[in-house]
Amino acid sequence: MNSKKSGNQTVTFQNPPVILSRCNVVGPKEGDGPLKGSFDVILHDTYDGEKSWERTEAKILERAMRGALEKVNVPSDSVDYILAGDLLNQIISSNFAARQMGLPFIGLYGACSTMALSIALGSMLIDGGFASKTLCGASSHHDTAERQYRLPTEQGSQRAMYSQWTVTGAGTVLLGDSGQGPRVTAATIGRILDYGETDAGNMGAAMAPAVADTILNHFQDLNRHPDFYDLIVTGDLGSVGLQLVLDILKKSGLNINNFSDCGVMIYSTEQDTHAGGSGCGCSAVVLTGDILNRMTSGELNKVLLIGSGSLHSSLSTQQGESMPAIGHAVCIEK
Amino acid sequence: MNSKKSGNQTVTFQNPPVILSRCNVVGPKEGDGPLKGSFDVILHDTYDGEKSWERTEAKILERAMRGALEKVNVPSDSVDYILAGDLLNQIISSNFAARQMGLPFIGLYGACSTMALSIALGSMLIDGGFASKTLCGASSHHDTAERQYRLPTEQGSQRAMYSQWTVTGAGTVLLGDSGQGPRVTAATIGRILDYGETDAGNMGAAMAPAVADTILNHFQDLNRHPDFYDLIVTGDLGSVGLQLVLDILKKSGLNINNFSDCGVMIYSTEQDTHAGGSGCGCSAVVLTGDILNRMTSGELNKVLLIGSGSLHSSLSTQQGESMPAIGHAVCIEK
Repeated sequence: MNSKKSGNQTVTFQNPPVILSRCNVVGPKEGDGPLKGSFDVILHDTYDGEKSWERTEAKILERAMRGALEKVNVPSDSVDYILAGDLLNQIISSNFAARQMGLPFIGLYGACSTMALSIALGSMLIDGGFASKTLCGASSHHDTAERQYRLPTEQGSQRAMYSQWTVTGAGTVLLGDSGQGPRVTAATIGRILDYGETDAGNMGAAMAPAVADTILNHFQDLNRHPDFYDLIVTGDLGSVGLQLVLDILKKSGLNINNFSDCGVMIYSTEQDTHAGGSGCGCSAVVLTGDILNRMTSGELNKVLLIGSGSLHSSLSTQQGESMPAIGHAVCIEK
Repeated sequence: MNSKKSGNQTVTFQNPPVILSRCNVVGPKEGDGPLKGSFDVILHDTYDGEKSWERTEAKILERAMRGALEKVNVPSDSVDYILAGDLLNQIISSNFAARQMGLPFIGLYGACSTMALSIALGSMLIDGGFASKTLCGASSHHDTAERQYRLPTEQGSQRAMYSQWTVTGAGTVLLGDSGQGPRVTAATIGRILDYGETDAGNMGAAMAPAVADTILNHFQDLNRHPDFYDLIVTGDLGSVGLQLVLDILKKSGLNINNFSDCGVMIYSTEQDTHAGGSGCGCSAVVLTGDILNRMTSGELNKVLLIGSGSLHSSLSTQQGESMPAIGHAVCIEK
C-alpha cells in the first residue's frame, strides 16, 4: 500500500484537504509594504505591549491560530493537531503558542521551509485518515531572529547588500477533510543539499541548490511542466537566491516565467531590506494573505509554493560548518 | 474519512507498520551502565575523533541511521522519509546527519519526546499510504546539551540531586509497510501542559503533568486498562518525575505496576547521575536496545512508550518563563 507516492519525493492526495480558513499577523514594516492590504492584523510596534520580542512572537502566532478558527466559527476542540514551527532555539514561539491552545501538538523544524512542511504533513494526516482538521502555522520576528542568528538590533550594525530581512509575522491555515476552498493536491518533501556556503548572511545562495532540486523533482515525479501552474513561488530566497535558482533551473532545461519569491514580494525596494524578506513567517503571511486572496478572486487557480530553509545554527556557523538547506513544496489548486 | 482516530488524541493503524530494523550508538558512560549489552556501538570517548562534540553527535546519529539499514540490507534509496530531531538549536545534529543520507527529510522538535514523535509520525505516513519505509531517529550528547542548556562540562559545576544526566546516544528504527517484527499499532499525540516549573534543572517535575495527561488520554481513548501492556515506559522522566507521574495517575484512579522509565533504566545508581538519564537519545537507545531485545526474546509482548519533552530553551528560562512540556505515546506489539 503505497498508492499515494508519485516518483521519488512527491505524494498526491486522494481526497485533497481543503484550506477552510487562514489568518495572519504582521509587524509594522511588513504592514508598510506592498502587500499591506492582505494582512489581518498589523502591529503598531514590534513589542505589541510585551516585555520581550520572544513573547511578542509567541503571542502573534497564537493570535493567528485563534484567528483562523474564529473566521469560520470552528471550535478549537474540533482541531485534531497543531503542526507548527519557528526559527527560535527549541521552537519556543510555537511551544508557547500551542500551550495556550491546549491541542495535540506536533513540533516541526524546517527554518523558512516550515510553513510548506506543516501544510504538507497536515495534509498527509488528513488524507491518511488520522485527522479531520489540522491547524498549520509558522512565525518569525525580525528582532528575535537577529539577536539569535546575526546582529542584535540594538547594535545597529550595517548589513550586507545580499542579506535578507527576517519578517515579523505569523500565518496559519486551517485544513479540513471537507468543505469549500482551495485544496492541497500534492506535496514534495525535500532532501538536504549543502554546496558549502558558510556566510550566514547569504542564505539565498545556501538555499538555492536545495530549492532547485525540489522543483526539478516535483516536475519529474508528476510528469508536469511549469505551465501547469499560474504561479510558482518560493519562500523565501530573496532576490539573490531567486536569480540563482532560475539559473540552475535554466541549466537543467527548465525555463520558468511565472516565478516569484515571497521574500521579494513582501517589501518594496524603498524599504531598504536589501535582498528581501526571510524567516518562517515570510512565506506564512504571503501565502495566507496575497497568494490565497488571488486564488479566491480567481486570478490564480494553481499555485506551487516551495518553502526554503537554511538549516544552520549560530553555533554551527561559529564552528565553521557550511549551511545545509532544504526545500519542501505544496501544490494548491482551486 | 476519519476512521483511524479513537477518542480525542489517539490513532490506531489499519496496517500497523513493522519495526524492520533498529540501531543505536552510545557514549562510554552509557556503555558502562546496566544496559551495556544492548547497544550496537559504544564509543571509547565522547569525541570519537571529532573536533567538537556537536560533530560527534551528528556522526553517531548518521551511524545509527546507516546501521539500521545495513542490518537488513535495505538500500538507502528505498527509504521514503527520514524523520528525526535532537535537542540542539535548529536541530543541527539531525540536519547534518540527514544531509549525509541524501533522503527526503522531515525535521522534528519535541525535546526528549522526539523518538516517540518520530515513530508516531513515521507510522502515520506508512499507514496513510505515503511511504513504504521511514527511518525514525533521535540523538543527544551530554556535552553538547550541557553547554547549550545548563553548565558547560569544562566548568565542573556541582549538579542538583534532582537533575538528570543527558545521555550521549543516538537510536533509529526502520519502519516498513510489511515484513517481520514488532508492530506499531497505535499512537497518542500529546498536548502541552505547563504547571509553572521554572528550574531548568528540574525537568522531571516540569514533564510529569503532561506525561500523565497523555497516559490517561491513551487509556481513555482506547478504553484500555494498564494491564493490557507488559511494560509502560516513559522516556525520560528520571526518578523524580517518575514518582510524580505515579502519584498523579494514582490520584486519577490509575494504579500502574508494570511502569518504568528509560532515564531510570539506563544508569546504575553508582554512576552518580543523580535523578537518571534524559535527552532525546535516552529513550531512543533504550527502546532500540533493551526494550526491543526483550520483545524479540518474548519477555515482552505489548509495550507503551511515552516520550516526554520539556519544551523550554535557555533563553526562555533566562527570561523567567516556565517550562511547557509534552508527552507522545506509541504502542508497540509483537
